[in-house]
Amino acid sequence: MSLSKDSESSMTAISETGMHKGQNGTGALTDKGAPARTRKQEKAGEQDAKVSGRALGRMVEAFMRLPGIGRKSAERLAFAVLGMQKDEAAGIAQAILDLKDSSRYCPLCNNITEDELCSICSDSRRDPAIICVVEEPSNILVLEKTGTFRGRYHALLGALSPLDGIGPEDLKIEGLLDRLRAGGVTEVILATNPTVKGETTALYLARLIKPLGIGVSRIAYGLPVGGDIEYADENTVQRALQGRRAM
Amino acid sequence: MSLSKDSESSMTAISETGMHKGQNGTGALTDKGAPARTRKQEKAGEQDAKVSGRALGRMVEAFMRLPGIGRKSAERLAFAVLGMQKDEAAGIAQAILDLKDSSRYCPLCNNITEDELCSICSDSRRDPAIICVVEEPSNILVLEKTGTFRGRYHALLGALSPLDGIGPEDLKIEGLLDRLRAGGVTEVILATNPTVKGETTALYLARLIKPLGIGVSRIAYGLPVGGDIEYADENTVQRALQGRRAM
Repeated sequence: MSLSKDSESSMTAISETGMHKGQNGTGALTDKGAPARTRKQEKAGEQDAKVSGRALGRMVEAFMRLPGIGRKSAERLAFAVLGMQKDEAAGIAQAILDLKDSSRYCPLCNNITEDELCSICSDSRRDPAIICVVEEPSNILVLEKTGTFRGRYHALLGALSPLDGIGPEDLKIEGLLDRLRAGGVTEVILATNPTVKGETTALYLARLIKPLGIGVSRIAYGLPVGGDIEYADENTVQRALQGRRAM
Repeated sequence: MSLSKDSESSMTAISETGMHKGQNGTGALTDKGAPARTRKQEKAGEQDAKVSGRALGRMVEAFMRLPGIGRKSAERLAFAVLGMQKDEAAGIAQAILDLKDSSRYCPLCNNITEDELCSICSDSRRDPAIICVVEEPSNILVLEKTGTFRGRYHALLGALSPLDGIGPEDLKIEGLLDRLRAGGVTEVILATNPTVKGETTALYLARLIKPLGIGVSRIAYGLPVGGDIEYADENTVQRALQGRRAM
């Protein structure tokens, strides 16, 4: 439980990071935004505005706020919007406004929803005995695409990261424990990311959940399907060897 | 001038292509949209909507209308918008609406502008004796980034493509000739793309402009700076050899 203490002592660092994120606009669901980008962004927008008008410059700046969109991509997207039918461009604008207005976190599992409960929590055909724990609601979408998991989910809205001052109280762990204490759950699958943060989070949760007498499993590490063993890193190969199965 | 005749006989084909473009939403400034994408798009949006709410599904579909944005990217962008501050997301939506509302083509050179004339046509320090001809307004932005060209521009808003039924009357060639006939221009640089369409357009324009007694040049073909000769295609290497300069 020393994690919790660590993160409390660096709470100031969190709020500072939080402010930076807000300013350079990559927001709460991503943590890849670099504060330095803001200046680059303005400069890019300035030149675009000078050559092709202020509205286009502002559009380029706006697109550059999105993750993975650099200046070139932002310019390409801006010109694409310019070339669209007016109602189609308006449709994109409306989709953005609607998304912010009507989407919220499911109070049970923190998935994204517009309704009282999310589509998975409100689906009585889903097995309530198995809960798959993920870091972000977007991960639920990825797991649902496999079409194989028929249980429920729980999104933590983050992962433990003592260095960034993110401790257990910053994640939606209490809600998960409430669900487990309510009974009926026989297995928790920890599907946090295969990273140091995700692994730390999984270990922390396993220690909390096991005493409740509930089975805890971790998704498998190994070689990605279709990958080439030659290009796999040593850690992955090591994990693949350790996780070998009789055939 | 047989190009012109060809394209007239296939005018029906143009408007059909135009309609398709409008429907699948990649719009007038790009020609890479495939009509088949619409169905894929809907299916993707459906699953997103089922798992993470209808608003998110619509956002994913909206982003997928942009060129180069596939399902994965669209989902990542949608979750990024979801994680943004509300006013920041609203800013992106507003930028889209503003862009469509206030941007138009410069009546002289077809660059994008919000004013009477574009920033380059209205800049008296730019040399009116040299006109650089490009296919799209976005190309002007690329050329301006070099900071070396101090003349004026003319965007054709396309390139000749007899197979797609795009002939000279579909491009802004008349406006260019008007500018040349008005006098004062000593050189036209043809900076259309290094593609079959761009080359065809450049050849066609050269034949029209030379009789006016105005110098016509074509931007150089050759190896890209920083590229590796080993990875260059034969055509590029051949052009690089032909274009060699004494040193």
